[in-house]
Amino acid sequence: MERRASVRWVSVDFELANRLAQSNTTKIVLCVLDGLGGLARPETLRSELEQSDTPNIDKLVGGSEVGLSVPVGAGITPGSGPGHLALFGYDPYRYDIGRGVLEAVGIDFDLGPNDVAARGNFCTLDTDGRIIDRRAGRVATEISAKIVERLRDIRIPGVEIFVEPVREHRFVLVLRGEGLDDHVSTTDPQVVGVPPLDALALARGADRTADVVNEFVLKAREIVASEPQANGLMLRGFAKYPDLPQFPQIWKVRAAALAVYPMYRGLAKLAGMESLPCPGGIEDQLRVLRERWDDFDYFFVHYKYTDAAGEDGDFERKCHAVQEFDRHVPEFLGLEPDVFMIAGDHSTPSLMAAHSWHPVPFLLHSRYARRGNATHFTEVECLKGSLGTFPAVDIMPLAMAHAMRFQKYGA
Amino acid sequence: MERRASVRWVSVDFELANRLAQSNTTKIVLCVLDGLGGLARPETLRSELEQSDTPNIDKLVGGSEVGLSVPVGAGITPGSGPGHLALFGYDPYRYDIGRGVLEAVGIDFDLGPNDVAARGNFCTLDTDGRIIDRRAGRVATEISAKIVERLRDIRIPGVEIFVEPVREHRFVLVLRGEGLDDHVSTTDPQVVGVPPLDALALARGADRTADVVNEFVLKAREIVASEPQANGLMLRGFAKYPDLPQFPQIWKVRAAALAVYPMYRGLAKLAGMESLPCPGGIEDQLRVLRERWDDFDYFFVHYKYTDAAGEDGDFERKCHAVQEFDRHVPEFLGLEPDVFMIAGDHSTPSLMAAHSWHPVPFLLHSRYARRGNATHFTEVECLKGSLGTFPAVDIMPLAMAHAMRFQKYGA
Repeated sequence: MERRASVRWVSVDFELANRLAQSNTTKIVLCVLDGLGGLARPETLRSELEQSDTPNIDKLVGGSEVGLSVPVGAGITPGSGPGHLALFGYDPYRYDIGRGVLEAVGIDFDLGPNDVAARGNFCTLDTDGRIIDRRAGRVATEISAKIVERLRDIRIPGVEIFVEPVREHRFVLVLRGEGLDDHVSTTDPQVVGVPPLDALALARGADRTADVVNEFVLKAREIVASEPQANGLMLRGFAKYPDLPQFPQIWKVRAAALAVYPMYRGLAKLAGMESLPCPGGIEDQLRVLRERWDDFDYFFVHYKYTDAAGEDGDFERKCHAVQEFDRHVPEFLGLEPDVFMIAGDHSTPSLMAAHSWHPVPFLLHSRYARRGNATHFTEVECLKGSLGTFPAVDIMPLAMAHAMRFQKYGA
Repeated sequence: MERRASVRWVSVDFELANRLAQSNTTKIVLCVLDGLGGLARPETLRSELEQSDTPNIDKLVGGSEVGLSVPVGAGITPGSGPGHLALFGYDPYRYDIGRGVLEAVGIDFDLGPNDVAARGNFCTLDTDGRIIDRRAGRVATEISAKIVERLRDIRIPGVEIFVEPVREHRFVLVLRGEGLDDHVSTTDPQVVGVPPLDALALARGADRTADVVNEFVLKAREIVASEPQANGLMLRGFAKYPDLPQFPQIWKVRAAALAVYPMYRGLAKLAGMESLPCPGGIEDQLRVLRERWDDFDYFFVHYKYTDAAGEDGDFERKCHAVQEFDRHVPEFLGLEPDVFMIAGDHSTPSLMAAHSWHPVPFLLHSRYARRGNATHFTEVECLKGSLGTFPAVDIMPLAMAHAMRFQKYGA
């Protein structure tokens, strides 16, 4: 079985993008509504977007290019990493970033070339060591942070160990030392009713790292044994720091990321964007956007609540999240961005309570937008837009064009 | 920054597909209506599908993803081989299977690595040796089988010769021996009024094989000379056994093929599917489907009559074939497949009496189907479906996703 990429349309490669990119004073705003796309409820035949009242976005549709973006490929359900990489123009097949690295960078951990990072989850185990809650009842951050502090006492010869709290049941483990290898299997069995798995080496040379991981888990289990909720732990997404071509250099833009959640900040930083702190949600993001408007050319604004509601299978809450965003659209437009985009990194239909492979509604508003036949910002209407169904990696070249930041190709 | 070809639609490579594939209890049914797509008659401006009454399929459209599949590429008219390979997820550019191999495997001939197989056609020649009927009046199978038996007496030094009857005017020739090469040209001129062609070597090293072929034809001509219909023969599709990655291993499904005609059974077997005998047509196929429902995860059901009518230029008969299939749709749905698909391997417009390059109507019904704007299952309506115009190689990844048989890609 060999690798192949059968190709439909070829889009811009970075070398070409860099050659075409020119500086300008124009501003690009990309709002990512995480997990934006949905599915219709069988009872009403309406999706979350069809159910939501979004007067401000709908007002934009007539003067915008709209369509449905395919994050990775037909039938492929992306994680947040590939979903965002595609929005930034990176081929998500080529650039594959482990969850551990995303989480580590997202909490401003200074990863080095010899580090292996993993995402940690506290979980709840029964008396036989079997998982009964994979998220330890989403234990409060204050509690999990204290547990993490105690885990820092673990010592394993030849390896430096960092344990960092993230949020609720999540933490980051970083192993630092010579000869560590990230080809280590997850210890998360993905189901309840069984114990966490042992870490296994997935490549020659990863045996020692797997041993270190298992030793860490053994010692950690002793430390957390008496915790009421977080009496177990799982590790996954072992990964080293990836060597991504840097977004500001490729596209010749000063790029800022305004994200509340660490993973999205982390991803943007890996791509070379500057992360601007805005912990308070969308109001805060708009404040920072206004304050730093002159300092950047490209703004990535991440809005998490659509995905969170979708993952919880909460149709109504997802509608509310969409409507809440819609209410702020005039404030974004008030800044008069040259290119204003509403996108999603993937679909998260409430009906599935999970990410899905379905294409994602997309809107690009600019002075040079060519309108299509869509009248509302819904999955079905976006099909009729001027962009149709198209790959998410095309979004960045399109933004550059609409921002008059691409020169002509060829004489 | 390196060169990359980021791709408009990348269809899954097999390594990735295999990594994402997970087992499940879901059932996938792919009904291939051979040559499904058509063209409108100028008098009525209606295509075969537009003319046909298909209440059962139309009922599905509202809750299905529909679109038009491109079998190979824009403007490319596929044979049955590439058309089906694409439906099974194989890149039809990469995997090229000769007709001879298809026919040989379809009659359960046990091909070996040193064999070269060719498809044979009896034809009718005039007294000057010019072809007057390329199919020998579709001579009865009982007659052609007897002629084939006499052809088995042909001896050529250094080569073992197998001649096998197929159906009507068709037979298979297999040459077995060291150093045979399948780069040999067809002897079928594709037109009447001229004699069959000599076989030519198309590559260095194929000279001897071409000589053997021509010697076989010479001896065969003597044997059939006195036949009233089948007094000539043509050979084409010289091919060796291809080394296809195996479908059940790639996608982790137990796969069954329910096809009446040998070529489609053969193709499915080359891909590693188990062929279930059902000689009696669609009633028989449904019976076998019910009987073996628990034994497989994926069922390929081949329906030939649409193509046969299209190839004969018989618009009305193609409509009848479509309607006949439509009547059986409730029986398929009665089995409650998780993913039910209606596809075609290519278009065969009655107007052209031949295969064509036109995209092919496609429907995928599942609980997670996102509806589009189509209301009927016709070429024009499928354009409005959620899948739009898309490559046929995407069908298998889509089916896997809708059957919840693909894991998430990336963190």
